[in-house]
Amino acid sequence: MSNLSPRRSKRPGRGGAEPTPAPPPITPGMVGGQYQPLTGSEMERIHQLVLRLLEDLGLSQVTPSLEQRAIAAGCRVDEDGRLRFPRALVEDVIARTRRRFTLHGLDPVHDLEIGGRRVHAGTGGAAPTIMDFETGRYRESTVADLYDIARLVDRLDNIHWYHRSVVARDTDTILDLDINTTYACLSGTTKSIAVSYTDGNSVRAVQPMLDMVAGGEGRFRERPFCTAVCCHVVPPMRFATESCDALEAAVLAGMPILLVAAGQAGATAPAALAGAVAQACAEVLAGLILCNIIDPNCRGIFAAWPFVSDLRTGAMSGGSGEQALLSAACAQMAGFYDLPNSVPAGMTDSKLPDAQAGGEKGYTISLAAHAGATMIHECAGMQGSLMGTAFESYVLDNDLLGAVLRTVKGVEVSEDALSFEAIRDVVMGAGHFLGHPQTFARMKTDYLYPEIADRRSISEWQDAGATDAREVARGRVRQLLADHYPRHISDSVDARLRERYNIVLPKARMRAGNGIW
Amino acid sequence: MSNLSPRRSKRPGRGGAEPTPAPPPITPGMVGGQYQPLTGSEMERIHQLVLRLLEDLGLSQVTPSLEQRAIAAGCRVDEDGRLRFPRALVEDVIARTRRRFTLHGLDPVHDLEIGGRRVHAGTGGAAPTIMDFETGRYRESTVADLYDIARLVDRLDNIHWYHRSVVARDTDTILDLDINTTYACLSGTTKSIAVSYTDGNSVRAVQPMLDMVAGGEGRFRERPFCTAVCCHVVPPMRFATESCDALEAAVLAGMPILLVAAGQAGATAPAALAGAVAQACAEVLAGLILCNIIDPNCRGIFAAWPFVSDLRTGAMSGGSGEQALLSAACAQMAGFYDLPNSVPAGMTDSKLPDAQAGGEKGYTISLAAHAGATMIHECAGMQGSLMGTAFESYVLDNDLLGAVLRTVKGVEVSEDALSFEAIRDVVMGAGHFLGHPQTFARMKTDYLYPEIADRRSISEWQDAGATDAREVARGRVRQLLADHYPRHISDSVDARLRERYNIVLPKARMRAGNGIW
Repeated sequence: MSNLSPRRSKRPGRGGAEPTPAPPPITPGMVGGQYQPLTGSEMERIHQLVLRLLEDLGLSQVTPSLEQRAIAAGCRVDEDGRLRFPRALVEDVIARTRRRFTLHGLDPVHDLEIGGRRVHAGTGGAAPTIMDFETGRYRESTVADLYDIARLVDRLDNIHWYHRSVVARDTDTILDLDINTTYACLSGTTKSIAVSYTDGNSVRAVQPMLDMVAGGEGRFRERPFCTAVCCHVVPPMRFATESCDALEAAVLAGMPILLVAAGQAGATAPAALAGAVAQACAEVLAGLILCNIIDPNCRGIFAAWPFVSDLRTGAMSGGSGEQALLSAACAQMAGFYDLPNSVPAGMTDSKLPDAQAGGEKGYTISLAAHAGATMIHECAGMQGSLMGTAFESYVLDNDLLGAVLRTVKGVEVSEDALSFEAIRDVVMGAGHFLGHPQTFARMKTDYLYPEIADRRSISEWQDAGATDAREVARGRVRQLLADHYPRHISDSVDARLRERYNIVLPKARMRAGNGIW
Repeated sequence: MSNLSPRRSKRPGRGGAEPTPAPPPITPGMVGGQYQPLTGSEMERIHQLVLRLLEDLGLSQVTPSLEQRAIAAGCRVDEDGRLRFPRALVEDVIARTRRRFTLHGLDPVHDLEIGGRRVHAGTGGAAPTIMDFETGRYRESTVADLYDIARLVDRLDNIHWYHRSVVARDTDTILDLDINTTYACLSGTTKSIAVSYTDGNSVRAVQPMLDMVAGGEGRFRERPFCTAVCCHVVPPMRFATESCDALEAAVLAGMPILLVAAGQAGATAPAALAGAVAQACAEVLAGLILCNIIDPNCRGIFAAWPFVSDLRTGAMSGGSGEQALLSAACAQMAGFYDLPNSVPAGMTDSKLPDAQAGGEKGYTISLAAHAGATMIHECAGMQGSLMGTAFESYVLDNDLLGAVLRTVKGVEVSEDALSFEAIRDVVMGAGHFLGHPQTFARMKTDYLYPEIADRRSISEWQDAGATDAREVARGRVRQLLADHYPRHISDSVDARLRERYNIVLPKARMRAGNGIW
């Protein structure tokens, strides 16, 4: 865990000997919540339904181990074998569960303080395909793709973590998939990572890897930088057996747990949006209660992720206005519970990084952010309603996220910002603000400059070849992936990992000049 | 004014003999305001600065006619010749100005009720260039472009009005420009139109045209379907003489007035966003006070439109996060005053309808809408920071606006929408919501289906040719422009218009089969 990037000096309060730099226009964890799609009484009404669903309907198919723990904690199993959660237990767990924690990066510079409507953004997903960078056609994604995306994300400031966004299709077994996914993510970035583990066995299998990278046995637990993504339910209102097994193992291993309930409105959740929100909240709380029963100090992340169906076809529509509402409403419900949380946004239905993709990402991400989501997942790189990803999109979405986060920063209203003196100076004097000292002072603190977005005049742009954003992003991808091979895992640790595990990614692939990029 | 489109039957409460249709998922004028970037005390603080700017600094260069009226109403002219507005007068005008009015379409089906955080969206702007549909290169825009864009807008449901978005460069005089702009807009759509008139002379020159189209002398005033866009100030804090002259004539003609103050933060307004908001609000109120002095029953629209400079170059950046904040904050200030209002959004810096354009439009428009802007201008068709427009963009933006408006509609929280019974039915029964009666019932009322956005699977899309959104939009443009030649102005009225005015657009250009599209 060396190789601390030049980014470090950009963060406030982390500077070295140099004079205190001006605060940057955006930082991870700025406070959202200024968009409130639901009223207070509407949230209360949804909450009452959540309690009713957990108490009167419950969830089926809990694992024997968790059933035993749950009964000991006050749950009951009904005549249909459904685990019911008394409303007092639900309220108690909501009241006492952990509200704030650090989501650790491999490098502490990437630590994130999760909770309290502090907004962060990053990847997520389980796309089975990727748009081939050379041919432009979708193909099965691989371990090498996972690693390359990790390296991209490592250099994109507005993507705050790397939760695996594609499923590697080139491993022989499920266990190898989980192991190689963990390895590829860890090797490509020092940001916080996440993997969806198939079962408890997978979780236990990677624990030595996490410890070795952390510096020795038991060290991972001190700074858990790998989150377990647990889709612990199969909506509606049924536990997913293997994932519950993974959940239990992950909590015991001290991993943060992303508790995902991803019903699809009109298919596995009600078509009525309020019902889909309530069902997802109930399903997530069921998982959170189990986590808390296992370990009251667990790091659970409330991830109510209801998706949308296009009701003409039944297909998922991640880019719809309805999706933007579902995610914003779930962020608000999580805020109502004051729980560290996640919602999905940026899941365009478009297969290309085009105008449709940009628009759908623009409104879904901005509404999720302003609703105060503490973690916005899937908001970089995804295409085709989560079924694909594209390298260019990470770079493009990083720009978009910057602008959205700038809006979360908000408008400073202070005596200086109100500018009466500046206006009077200019009106009675030079007639122009460009040369005014206030303008210089605000230039770096109040204004964010994008990397990809083209702000040139029409004629300059036309004379320079009239490229579109995707083409510019492609250039940036090539440059980053040719240059940036993180070296935070030492050769000796890597050699021990390769000895212990069946690592698919060739060592030679992890060096500049490998001929790939 | 015949040719009432099939759209009519889609509007609620306007159906004929057929059974009451299900309410559509979106309608013009849904209520926004759930995004509040400023706190109550921040708005109060900005308001206090607005009053101070008007009272202590005032505006220079008012016209003699308006100066006389203003002094009679209680203003004073200071030793520097600046018109000062006593704070009591400002507060009085804010209190008594018209808060709600109908913005008429040529066809009443397009009438809009303006005021009270009811959100509407439409075109605007003064782009001097357009991307040529065949060559893809920007060229000077023409009267024919104005007409063609009008025809497009006429068929795009989520663009609620057609305020001229390009400047025709093919007229000989300024007067001919204003006359031909009015004619091209009126001829191409039955939605409400707007034109920026150069001076009072222009306004008076088009009045007979407006009356003739409305059905006779004095008829326009009964249903004023043409708004005058008045950039009545040259920021900072100076009146624009000719536009003030146009303003006076337009108010006297009974036209709605869009009172635009378009300072550019860092150039003609403070770089600090709060100051830019306050200055714009003060400048707009100065115009609104003048309108109210001329006619207390005027239809003024509060259009505080501060723009953003990229402070590295001084160039405008319409697509920035800072712009999204400025527009949202101005919408909120207008809501604080409870005035019919407008903000700009969707002004991408990109020259193409690409991922950058989509993203920038996505977040700027959604935040303006949720801040409760009653009119969002420039939100369809604009490219290159308002310096260009593109036919495809109108079609693409119509789709985007639909989705954003769907989010403004919000989440219905009712006993049926909460869905306890539906969830119980499915959990204890079929296990799936697709066949549930609630799903069928919600399919048309809760879900909006886009025209352009591609929701197919990756393989279906790839097999069908892997087109991007722009290509799909191009097909739709071609189809609409080849087919749709509105006929609401009769041949006899048109002949009289051509007799009286120097109309540039050939009659033959205004018929299907003209070989252009």
